[in-house]
Amino acid sequence: MKTAFSRTLCALALGAGLSAGLVAQAQSLSAEDQIKFRKAGYSFMSWNMGKIKAQVIDGSVAFDPAQVEAAAQAIAGIANSGMGALFGPGTDQDAGEQRTRARPELFQNFPDVATLGNNMNRAADNLLEQAKTGDQAKIRAAFGELGQTCKACHDKYRAR
Amino acid sequence: MKTAFSRTLCALALGAGLSAGLVAQAQSLSAEDQIKFRKAGYSFMSWNMGKIKAQVIDGSVAFDPAQVEAAAQAIAGIANSGMGALFGPGTDQDAGEQRTRARPELFQNFPDVATLGNNMNRAADNLLEQAKTGDQAKIRAAFGELGQTCKACHDKYRAR
Repeated sequence: MKTAFSRTLCALALGAGLSAGLVAQAQSLSAEDQIKFRKAGYSFMSWNMGKIKAQVIDGSVAFDPAQVEAAAQAIAGIANSGMGALFGPGTDQDAGEQRTRARPELFQNFPDVATLGNNMNRAADNLLEQAKTGDQAKIRAAFGELGQTCKACHDKYRAR
Repeated sequence: MKTAFSRTLCALALGAGLSAGLVAQAQSLSAEDQIKFRKAGYSFMSWNMGKIKAQVIDGSVAFDPAQVEAAAQAIAGIANSGMGALFGPGTDQDAGEQRTRARPELFQNFPDVATLGNNMNRAADNLLEQAKTGDQAKIRAAFGELGQTCKACHDKYRAR
């Protein structure tokens, strides 16, 4: 059972561009810490998404290309850091003080999750690339595309 | 009082390379959310520091230059995202469900905190630069320097 789980975890990890070494290291983290760190990553990405949204979508904050680029850099850095390693055994349910909204289906469909994760990574890379141009229309389009990749995973695999 | 606080917040924000626009935007976040997001950022940095430590200090995980660079990229992206904006009014104490270990002294010494924050940002940039070389000795040195900048702030401004 554990071997089957390890295989599917490896499929996810490889899909997300990780090597077996990182998977092994992640497995030495407690389930509680894995949930804590993955929630932290998504949370910090959401803060930075909010900053970009305020500047290029809502217009509630004046557009500052350097701030938008810094926010996009944080998002891309987090997205590409190998978060697949934080969905190890035991993280499919609350652990210690950490609650998770990940649905059980996520852990039964790692290849699909890896595809969705890779879509997010590519969209985050593209947002950073467009942010560097300073062109608000391009940033707006890239931001919308990234938001769609977030939503695609949330709709399938995150509890409401 | 609020104006004085805003001035010191601006001093911090400017020291951290932020503009008044971002400060204004941060102030529209609740104290609870500011604490949540800053803790998320530091937490996600610590996960990535742990990965680099395992590979270049402890040797408990095989050295993988691409993984180390990805981790360094996440750290630098978070460090440079303008976290000074997450230390606004009301975040000097627990708020809602969020607890903070930031000591009151942090909020009374923003210029010093900004200096320490800038030191961290430069060290994070240097770690990324060295990670790109793939030279373990250089990465090890840069990692140690970054760790010192973390510790310098924790020793002064974080409760034990």
